[in-house]
Amino acid sequence: MGKLLIVGTVAFDEIETPFGKTDKILGGAATFIGLAASQFDVDSAIVSVVGDDLPQEYLDLLKNRNIDLSGLEVVKGGKTFYWKGKYRNDLNSRDTLVTELNTLADFNPVVPDSFKDAEVVMLGNLHPSIQMSVIEQMRADPKLIVLDTMNFWMDNALEELNRVIEHIDVIAINDEEARQLTGEYSLVKAAEEIQKMGPRFVVIKKGEHGALLFHGEKVFFAPALPLEEVFDPTGAGDTFAGGFAGYLAATGSISFGNLKNAVIHGSNLASFCVERFGTERMQDLQRKEVNQRLHQFKTLTQFDIELS
Amino acid sequence: MGKLLIVGTVAFDEIETPFGKTDKILGGAATFIGLAASQFDVDSAIVSVVGDDLPQEYLDLLKNRNIDLSGLEVVKGGKTFYWKGKYRNDLNSRDTLVTELNTLADFNPVVPDSFKDAEVVMLGNLHPSIQMSVIEQMRADPKLIVLDTMNFWMDNALEELNRVIEHIDVIAINDEEARQLTGEYSLVKAAEEIQKMGPRFVVIKKGEHGALLFHGEKVFFAPALPLEEVFDPTGAGDTFAGGFAGYLAATGSISFGNLKNAVIHGSNLASFCVERFGTERMQDLQRKEVNQRLHQFKTLTQFDIELS
Repeated sequence: MGKLLIVGTVAFDEIETPFGKTDKILGGAATFIGLAASQFDVDSAIVSVVGDDLPQEYLDLLKNRNIDLSGLEVVKGGKTFYWKGKYRNDLNSRDTLVTELNTLADFNPVVPDSFKDAEVVMLGNLHPSIQMSVIEQMRADPKLIVLDTMNFWMDNALEELNRVIEHIDVIAINDEEARQLTGEYSLVKAAEEIQKMGPRFVVIKKGEHGALLFHGEKVFFAPALPLEEVFDPTGAGDTFAGGFAGYLAATGSISFGNLKNAVIHGSNLASFCVERFGTERMQDLQRKEVNQRLHQFKTLTQFDIELS
Repeated sequence: MGKLLIVGTVAFDEIETPFGKTDKILGGAATFIGLAASQFDVDSAIVSVVGDDLPQEYLDLLKNRNIDLSGLEVVKGGKTFYWKGKYRNDLNSRDTLVTELNTLADFNPVVPDSFKDAEVVMLGNLHPSIQMSVIEQMRADPKLIVLDTMNFWMDNALEELNRVIEHIDVIAINDEEARQLTGEYSLVKAAEEIQKMGPRFVVIKKGEHGALLFHGEKVFFAPALPLEEVFDPTGAGDTFAGGFAGYLAATGSISFGNLKNAVIHGSNLASFCVERFGTERMQDLQRKEVNQRLHQFKTLTQFDIELS
């Protein structure tokens, strides 16, 4: 069992999809990452900040999953980061209606001493200077640092972001972000360019079209499971990242073969996440269901052509 | 070695992409299907019509691939079907600049007697009444009838198209067309609905995002190979169909497992087609290259998770 350090938001989300809407519910990158990683045998910890308006039951939900919250700062009288968004009819695009940074605006991350030797660090989508601070607090070089980020930081904090990218091993971004970061339309070329910037592994997430893993000349592709219904895409990317990083922390190997498996595990968990609002599906997800769906992934992609 | 009957256009294409443009060159669905199928050990024949303005070298090119042209009518003084199109910068959409049906307008397909017992019939994209006429001319029930069609016929000849769909075994359409045909956004649901209309197998082509094969509860996914450059997408869908149908005609089995292989072979050949203008790449394609790239498909998708 390895240690996984997670940095990211713990938040209130308010979501509207064509299928319904929620009140303020539990959300945030670190939340989804932590829940996904808890499907594996890992010791994980979340570094984040919230206000004391976040219900205790949300924190208990994470604690009960063996997630260490000693690095989660609760600001007295502070308000928790709040995001409100509405998905369009095809669920592939969404409009942000409200973003209130609140306590996140002055967040100064502190890595718990017992996780300064974590084997895997998962940097959830956040300001790159916060991600950099976490990297700098690590006592030993982690076996693997995984970065999730988004176009917002490419637009608004590119210099800091580039510095983080120099220090990481795996970047996980979507296709449009890979194109923006490199100016290359071809994802193969974009992945080549990104590897020159630092990371040895590049994961390009294509949403309902699956994910690609690049490493030197090697490429691996994991489809998204074709689902009857996608109910709410919120957190799917974070769940993917959490499954990916959690599996690697639990198994310890960072061979290309094991990263392929990690991509499959991440895709598998993300396929559950989108079935209900927010974290709802991930809260009651059983390992038996997870294993059953892995079989589906195998039959979905495996074929038997005799190769000469 | 099985017999494959192909109906579709043999045409002049004039193409502009961000990378350059062509004069009038050889194109048409039946052309791409025939060239792709010729990678396998099949006896194939094309049923189509052209004018006598089509250079003899184009016909020789097909004949030299062991493609029977006795069902290809050459209309004296007639002009060959002509399509001119321009791709946008992302290559995912294109504008049709000119369509001249010419001899195709009065086409009355005649299946050569020696191919009325073909095991596999590949109905390339054409007016559904022409496709239906070919089905009706078959002496014995073919083992497998594969249909390619497009939204244009859904808009303009839906009744005839639905009648064809009742009589076929496999439909190959793109994701938007599957949605239009069924009114279902979810591709899983769309595939279910289409199976109720007739075909036992549904192939949904997603272009650069790969292809899905549905059969009852079973689903298989083949990615498109991530390429450094896509040069010209013209004919990729027909090449996919030709590889699919050609492989099935050559191997004779229509098990789900063999259809999975056929989807991979189709995707593999399509990955070559897009590397140059029109049929250029398919003309000089060697089986050795084809086999090498099949290895890439295998490493792209195969993983080794121990399943419990």
